[in-house]
Order: sequence, then structure tokens, then C-alpha cells
Amino acid sequence: MKQLRVALAQKNAVVGDLQGNTAQVVSAAFDARRRGAHVLVLPEMFLTGYPIEDLALRDSFAQAADYRLQTLARTLKRRDLDDMVIVVGNLGRQAGTDAPQNVAGVLHGGKVAARYAKQHLPNYGVFDEYRYFAPGQRDLIVRIHGVDVAIAICEDLWNDDGPASRAAGHGADLLLVINGSPYEINKDDVRLDLCARRAAEADCPLAYVNLVGGQDELVFDGDSIVVSPIGQVLARAGQFTDEVVVVDLAFDQRKSVDSNPYADRLDRVVISDEPLELYTPIGSAVSARLSDEEEVYTAVVTGLRDYIEKNGFETVILGLSGGIDSALTAVMAADAIGPDRVYGVSMPSVHSSDHSMTDAEDLSQQLGIYYMSVPIAPMVDAFHEAIVINGVAAENLQARMRGMTLISLSNQEGHLVLATGNKSELAVGYSTIYGDAVGGFAPLKDLPKTWVWRLAKWRNDVAAQMGEVVPIPESSITKPPSAELRPDQLDTDSLPDYHLLDDVLDDYVENDRSAAELVRDGFDLDTVERVLAMVDHAEYKRRQYPPGPKVSLKAFGRDRRLPITNHWREKAPRAATPAASEDSDAPEAASEAGSGSGAAEPGGGPLVTE
Amino acid sequence: MKQLRVALAQKNAVVGDLQGNTAQVVSAAFDARRRGAHVLVLPEMFLTGYPIEDLALRDSFAQAADYRLQTLARTLKRRDLDDMVIVVGNLGRQAGTDAPQNVAGVLHGGKVAARYAKQHLPNYGVFDEYRYFAPGQRDLIVRIHGVDVAIAICEDLWNDDGPASRAAGHGADLLLVINGSPYEINKDDVRLDLCARRAAEADCPLAYVNLVGGQDELVFDGDSIVVSPIGQVLARAGQFTDEVVVVDLAFDQRKSVDSNPYADRLDRVVISDEPLELYTPIGSAVSARLSDEEEVYTAVVTGLRDYIEKNGFETVILGLSGGIDSALTAVMAADAIGPDRVYGVSMPSVHSSDHSMTDAEDLSQQLGIYYMSVPIAPMVDAFHEAIVINGVAAENLQARMRGMTLISLSNQEGHLVLATGNKSELAVGYSTIYGDAVGGFAPLKDLPKTWVWRLAKWRNDVAAQMGEVVPIPESSITKPPSAELRPDQLDTDSLPDYHLLDDVLDDYVENDRSAAELVRDGFDLDTVERVLAMVDHAEYKRRQYPPGPKVSLKAFGRDRRLPITNHWREKAPRAATPAASEDSDAPEAASEAGSGSGAAEPGGGPLVTE
Repeated sequence: MKQLRVALAQKNAVVGDLQGNTAQVVSAAFDARRRGAHVLVLPEMFLTGYPIEDLALRDSFAQAADYRLQTLARTLKRRDLDDMVIVVGNLGRQAGTDAPQNVAGVLHGGKVAARYAKQHLPNYGVFDEYRYFAPGQRDLIVRIHGVDVAIAICEDLWNDDGPASRAAGHGADLLLVINGSPYEINKDDVRLDLCARRAAEADCPLAYVNLVGGQDELVFDGDSIVVSPIGQVLARAGQFTDEVVVVDLAFDQRKSVDSNPYADRLDRVVISDEPLELYTPIGSAVSARLSDEEEVYTAVVTGLRDYIEKNGFETVILGLSGGIDSALTAVMAADAIGPDRVYGVSMPSVHSSDHSMTDAEDLSQQLGIYYMSVPIAPMVDAFHEAIVINGVAAENLQARMRGMTLISLSNQEGHLVLATGNKSELAVGYSTIYGDAVGGFAPLKDLPKTWVWRLAKWRNDVAAQMGEVVPIPESSITKPPSAELRPDQLDTDSLPDYHLLDDVLDDYVENDRSAAELVRDGFDLDTVERVLAMVDHAEYKRRQYPPGPKVSLKAFGRDRRLPITNHWREKAPRAATPAASEDSDAPEAASEAGSGSGAAEPGGGPLVTE
Repeated sequence: MKQLRVALAQKNAVVGDLQGNTAQVVSAAFDARRRGAHVLVLPEMFLTGYPIEDLALRDSFAQAADYRLQTLARTLKRRDLDDMVIVVGNLGRQAGTDAPQNVAGVLHGGKVAARYAKQHLPNYGVFDEYRYFAPGQRDLIVRIHGVDVAIAICEDLWNDDGPASRAAGHGADLLLVINGSPYEINKDDVRLDLCARRAAEADCPLAYVNLVGGQDELVFDGDSIVVSPIGQVLARAGQFTDEVVVVDLAFDQRKSVDSNPYADRLDRVVISDEPLELYTPIGSAVSARLSDEEEVYTAVVTGLRDYIEKNGFETVILGLSGGIDSALTAVMAADAIGPDRVYGVSMPSVHSSDHSMTDAEDLSQQLGIYYMSVPIAPMVDAFHEAIVINGVAAENLQARMRGMTLISLSNQEGHLVLATGNKSELAVGYSTIYGDAVGGFAPLKDLPKTWVWRLAKWRNDVAAQMGEVVPIPESSITKPPSAELRPDQLDTDSLPDYHLLDDVLDDYVENDRSAAELVRDGFDLDTVERVLAMVDHAEYKRRQYPPGPKVSLKAFGRDRRLPITNHWREKAPRAATPAASEDSDAPEAASEAGSGSGAAEPGGGPLVTE
């Protein structure tokens, strides 16, 4: 029998901070050594942070990253940490061509003992890795204390023809997978199944380590896993937690593998042949999973916190309308960085109800955030005196005066402005560009309205269970949503009920389904066509919307890329007259040419939400 | 000898407008038949428009596009246009997998006689075709009147291993290349060289047809070309012109090609074996090239016009400061859609000079656009009474009141707002988010300040030469640039001279060069580090900036993708003390970790330009 103690460092890298990320590797190495680990593994592109986008194409950065890897190896030796083998992701360069590669560096004895380059590059969803990296062509097995360790990087694991499919042939004792795998709701279940399947395929234990933390619109949830070849979970890290997980692994003597059909594409590096003296293994923890609500809430708070901290903001500011969106945003901000760094501004207009102001003030008091009130009537009036504005333009003007108030205070005092719009509004353009869309970050950007309610209730329940003050006023949750930009206005004057709307949006935005399919599924034809047209129509607004954390299968932004100038409109077949039904067999019944374009309302959509 | 008359339709497609684009094919076919053409060729993905981005992933759209191709074939037959062979680009689907492909459909006799799928997919710069398309694996030769015609699509031509490299082996008589090749300055010269090189390689004439017109941030310049195998230009269309070019080609009897080394990957389709009776060829035109200034100016005007028209706007509105940026933008808008559809608004503040107002009014009169003046003092005062704002925040407030005035008028009256910022300002963040950055489209977005001056002078010179009223007041060109947000303010208080700035930006933004390289080239170290830090710092502002036409090698937007959260900072080695010079050998001397992030000034940069 052979043994190996492996430490998985589920850590939070900062894009471009080579120095800081390197320092994190060293401190993780001290931690791992203290706990007797023989191998320390860090996530994909940890030294550079991930994703680095076009930084990958800059020679000066690529050289600096490679230099960092080598100085790291020397630093580890200086600190007597070089008995341990350290596997860490970095930006590398292809031998000969110098083309950028997504690599794992294997450090030992003060040197870079081996390099592995990612072979399968994701180029879908939020990923553009064909743009950046030359794919690796070789598998790698590193022998550590007699244990043959195969290495793979993220997409390599998801691909059926990846290194895992050849690991058994290579006679691997252990498969290490380093990842930069962004959070999506329920992805943790998918990951565990995948790891178990690949471990069985590789016929050896598999150790999966992932980043944690936020990077612009992405949030990494960690969820590092170690599974046995029979699918037993040997260790599992927490979700969104910064931690080093240590696991003891035992291996049988392997059969020899002279019959390896993949030998021609394998690189073997021997670091140490001699198995360790047998020792008593330590136990390792399997963290419990979070509930769906806690998982999504934590993802948003993590993305928000890291955007604030990594970009050096001391404080945030947001408008408080008394509505549920701004209330949840405020609570998330307080949970992210503490209430003493959050500034709430109530900006009542003539149309603001009393409860909207009292709810906003109650929320601030219950949360313990700063609160001020800036009535916008004087600014609104100044514009009405200068130019003729009425109808929707006048409604949007109120939202814009609020946006200008927030950005001016931000400009004056250095706060980051948080936009409070949710995904349902952003989808149908139910927001005012340069109004409620003003902000440096938009925490709810990828949360449908129905999820906003769900998380608000969940957060209040948690507070109640813990005997804390319940932060969100009940009436903010129960009142019918209103933009309060004209008397007695309700969102439902302009939109379907949010539960219906979110159902339609889920089909159209997240699953790219056609109007015809939605109608076949029983949605009302006029509702479907109206909602889908609103979504297409609002593309130009989304282009100028602030970034926000992706939590869904398909977030707006780099995850869903549509032209602004776009005459395609989804149409469902009309009720079947013989003629019509003939038409309706024609797919192009789904097409409508014309000027109904996404950008025809520069002033920004019907209304605002807050 | 064999003959063939080929018509190249250099046309302007609209993304998603299957019906309208199909109608354009039919009218081009009538035109081509009238002129006796045997083959009509239309650009890449002409039926769908290009690029369609994630529309390619929507089944309903892919089905409709394929259906359109088939109905087009039937329509052409109904109109007796089906003797002609028509080659047109479209969205296709891979047999078996239904994966999207970028295809050329060959129509004849009321049917789709053949399909070719693009083999080489660009995935750099503005292109993401690995995201969308499954690459084709087969070459195609279509025999038309005994002439063997090979087909290729855009990137196929740029790749050394593309169909052109096998065309001679296939015994091709003619190589047809359909393209969606966006304009970049000087790209026409590159294209001609490429076409000549490939024609020689294929040992046959090459006909290259490209799109014209604007699609969001891209402008297609046409520049369709026919070259002989010895590099002689047989025909060349104009730049940015919507036209059908007809050329007569003659071919020798070819040697037989039983020895084709690439036969295994070739599909052959015979439409007609019998050569045409010999006829007298018509001559064809070779259009002259535009000057650099006219070329760039026309590219911007084309992109602006198509954004306005394809999105159904009647009118545009912009702020007129008396400065050169707003002046050039106004002239471009008037040239794009006519002065009677352009609204200029002067929005003077207490800091506005007299000349800024008179220059704005003179411009409007000379152009014949609508003009109004809205003093912003009352709106500015209303904010100062409501909240404490001073310093840079107060300067930005003025810009924001102008932005709100424009967007409110747009909202009220339906104008498209044009932002007037230039590329130099956008690069260093010398603009106010939600202020002068307000707009639905930004014509100067990819024009450095020095180019703004160059085009303004050029446009005035043209007017003078043609005996027209010179549109741009001389003083707008000659006055030192100022944002006029505080007394006696000049851009050079905050920025290097624009000629120096644009030199640095060209190296850093367009050519991704390092601070060290710039300093080696003789730029002042402090200037380089200051400018580069400003560029990195302004990334968050660029994310919320309106789209504008790409004319340079690398435009901001999808052409240059950098993270907002990014601690990498370019540093050049300091003057060599022994210690320092040792450091400076370390590439990571170029790195600076810390909180100096791109988003630390939510209020939006130092100042505004107009």
C-alpha cells in the first residue's frame, strides 16, 4: 500500500495581483505543511487570477506570470516548503510559439518540476478560451512518493475525451483537477456526479479544487471535492468558503502498464519513487450543502463583497424606495461589508406613498445602515421649467434625478453606487437608463423578481430563527410592486404578474425556446409575443447596465450575446384557419421583418421600478 | 476557351430581417439578369445579416433561415431567375448534428443545388465564431457551364490551409469568396494583396464579394474585388457603396485532374457541363480608392446612418459645446441623414465662454440643423441646494445635467442621443459617466482626438473645394480643447498634449505594448505610467459607454476585453541603480499589486470634455 496526504487550497485569487496571489500560495503551503500534507493543490490560473481575459494576450503580463511561478518555487525552497509538491494554475506559454496557455505548474525542490497545459478549452457561455489559449497536446503523470498523479484542468474533466479517459491506461493512482468553475444554481450536484463518474472511469481517486470569490460578473463557489473510484465522497469543502482541505489517501500497488494505448501522448516526471512509510491517516470533513436560498444569497453577497473590496471601495450607497428590490440589496450589502459601510438614500417625489418612506427608514434602522432623505421635487421642477417633459418621459425624469443624486454623492464622497434592479426588469426593459440603472454594480442583476421575494423571506426567516432583528419590513415584501412615478401606479399596469413573467423569461432567456414552443406549452399567445418583444427591444439598455453577479444558467452580459440592431422577432402561429395553419408550418412564420428594433426608445423603456 | 459572366452583389443586409434580405437577393437577381450574368454572388450570411451573435444558437431562427433559403430558390424559379446560379451566405445546420454552420447556399433551378460550410472560423478580435459554428470539413466545386467554381467563405481565404490552397489540385477554374469582412483603416490594401496571393496559389481568377453597411459597432466597406491569377485587378467595387459589379471571365480548357491529392475531401456538383457559346465580353470598372480621411469619415457616417435607420429613428439629438468633437459629430450626422433630422442643443453653464455659444450657433446655421439653447444653471443650482457637491463632483454635475437634458428630450421627442466623446477621452476616462457619456450611439468612439481634428479639417476643405458653406467654425478647430467646467480650464491641465497622448495610446491600446517598451522607444517614463494607469482605471466607464463604429485595428468593446477588477499595472524599470537594474530585469517589475483598481472612481473620472 502507498499513502499520500493531499491539501486542496480553495482560495480567492485577485486578477492581475501576481504578488498577492503568490503570497496566498506561500501561506497555504505553511498551513498544509503544518498539517503534514505531501501535496498542495491550488486552483486554475491561481497566480494570475481567473478569468484574465485579454491580459492573456499581453506579453509583459505573460512574462511576469511565468517569472512569478519560478520565483515562487525559489521562495518555497527558501522557506523550507519545497519537500512538499505544489500544483498551481498559471498563465503559461507554449514552447516554441510562445502562444498563451492555461497551465498547471508542478513545483518541487525550488524548481518548476513539470508543466501541464489544459487540453480542452471552453468557448461557450461566459468562456472564450479559444480566443486566448493554445490547447495542450500531452497528458502528464507526476510520480510523488511512488504515487502516479495525473493532472487535468477544469474543462478537461467535462470532456469525454479528456485526460480522465486515459488516466487508467496511464496507470494513474490519483487524478488532480484544478478548476476555475463559476457558480450556477445547482451546479454543485452536477459537479459531484461528474467527479464520481470520472473517478470511476480513471479507476482512481479524484481530487477537485476550485476557486472561491467574485471576479466582476463571476462568482466562484469552491465546493472542492475528493471522491473514491467507487464514488464515495472522501472530503468536501464548503461553498464560498476560503479554506484548505486536507485528505489522506491510500493506494494499492498498481499493475504495471506497459500496455498503455496512450503512451505516445504521455509525459512522465518522477519526483520521488520511494513510497512513504505507512502512517495513521487523519479524518477529513465532508461539508454539508447549503439550501438553494442560502446558496444563491451567498453567491450574490460574495460577488458583491469582492467587487467592493477588490476594487478598493470603502463604502456603498443606494436608493431606498421602500420596495423589495432596494431592501434586499441593502441587506445584502450590509451582510457583505457591514452596515457601517452602507449608505441608504430615500428620494421621495410627489408620488411617493407614506409607507414607501417609512418602510425605507424602518429598514435602515433595523439594519443599522446610514440613512438620509433627499426629496427630488426641486430638481424635477428645475427640468420642467427648462424643457417640456410629460408622460413617460416625466416619469423617467424622476428616476433620473434619483440616479444623478446617487452618482453625485458617490462622486463627492467616494461610495460605490449599487443599482437595485432585478433580472425580470432588466429582461423586459422595465427600468430607466441613467435612472435606476445608475450604478457601479448591480447585485440583483441575475435574480428574477420571484427570487427576490424568495430570498427576502428567507433572510427574514433566518434572522427570526436566530433571534435577530428581522431586517426587511413585512410590507416591503407584501405590498404590490409599484414604481410610484404616477398616482396609483402598479407594475402590473405594464407587465404580467411576475410569476407568469418569470416563467416566460425562464423559457425564453435561459432556455432559448421559441414563441411557438411557449404557446404549445400553454402560455397565452399575446402575452408570449408581448414579453418576447419587450426582451428583444431592451437589448440596448442592457448594454449600458452595470455588472452584477451571475447565479443563473444564463445571465445577461457575456453569457447571452445578442445584437442591438436585430429585426428578428419571435412569432407563434396564429389560431388555425386552413390558410393560417399552412403558414404556421413555415418556420418563417416566426419571423417579422420591420423597424421594430431594440433601440427605438432611447429614453429608456416604459417606466422605472424604484 | 470557356466564358462566364459573374455578378457580385455588394449589398447591405439587416440582421434578423430574413424577409427583407431575401427581397434584396431577388432584386439583385433581376439586376444581374438584365446585365446578362450567369452567376450572382452575395456576401457571407447575407440572408440572416452578419454577425448574428447568439441568434445562431436559437433553433427557431436557424429553422427559419434554412426555410428562407429554400423559399428563395422557389421564388427565383417563379420569377424565371433560376437559369442563373446564385451563391448566397446563410445560417445553416450540420447534417446529423443540427449544429449551426456558416454556409454558402448554391441555388439553381428552384432548388438548393449545393451547400458549402465555412471551414476556418475566426475567434479573435471582434469574432467569436467557435462559439457559434461547427466548422465544415469538405471543399466544394460546382460546375457551371463547364466552368469549375470553387467556393470559400471569408476566414477560409485568410488561412494558409484553406480551400484556396487546394483549389489548383481540384482543378478549379474560378474561386468565389463570400465575405463579412468589417472595415479597418488600410484593410483594403491588405485584402487586395491577399486576394492576389490566393488567386496565384489557386492558379485561377478569384472573385471576392463583401457586405456593405453598419451593424452595431461594425461597418462593412464592401471593396469587392476580382483578380486574375497573375494579380491583375479585373474589377473592383467602390468602398461603402451598395452596388452590383458584373465581370466577364474567360478560362482555358483545364488539364484533367485525376491526380488530385485532395480528392477525398472534395464534393463535386455539376449544374451544367456545356460551355457557353463564345460571346463578346463587357468591360468592368475598377473603382478608385478613397483617401484615408474620406475612407474613415465615410466608415463612421455609414455606421451612424445604419444604426439610425435600421433601428427606426427619425431624428438624432446632441449637445453642442462649440468644441471640435460635438461639431464633427453634428456634421457627420447631417451627412448621414440630412440636417433636417438633426437637433443640436447648446447647454451653457456659468463657465461657458461666449465663443463656445457663438461657435455652436454658427455651426448649426452653417449646417442647417435645428438649434436650441437650454442653460443648465437652474438644474445645477437645484442639486447644489439639495446636496453638498464641490470640486470634481461639481464639475461632473454640469456634464450630467446636460446628459439628463438630452436624454429627457430624447425620451419626450423620440430622438436618438449621440454621445460626442472621442477614443482618446474614452481611453483615459476623461469623460463623465451619465454625463457626456449619455447616448444611444457614439460616432467618434473609435477616433483619437488627433483624427477628430484631421477629419474636421478634411471635411471643411472638401466643402471649400466644392464651393459649399464650410460647416465647422475655424475657431472650433483651432481653440485649445477645454471642458469649460471651471474658469480657464484646459484639457492639458489634466492630460498630456493630445498628439503625445495618442502616440502612447496607439502603442498601448492598439498594439498591446508594455510600459517598458514604450520607455525604450523614448517616451517619458512618468507620462507612460500615468497614461497607462488612466487607461486601466477607466475600464468600468467603457463598459457603460454607448456603441460606436469600429474603424481602428482595435476598438474598445468586443475587440478589447479586459476585466474591470484587475490589479495588474504596467510599470517600466526605473533608472538603473545596481539594485534597481537587477530588479528591472525581473518582468514582474512590471507588476504592481494593490487596490489601484479600475473602478475606484465611481463618479466617473476627472472631468468631462464637453
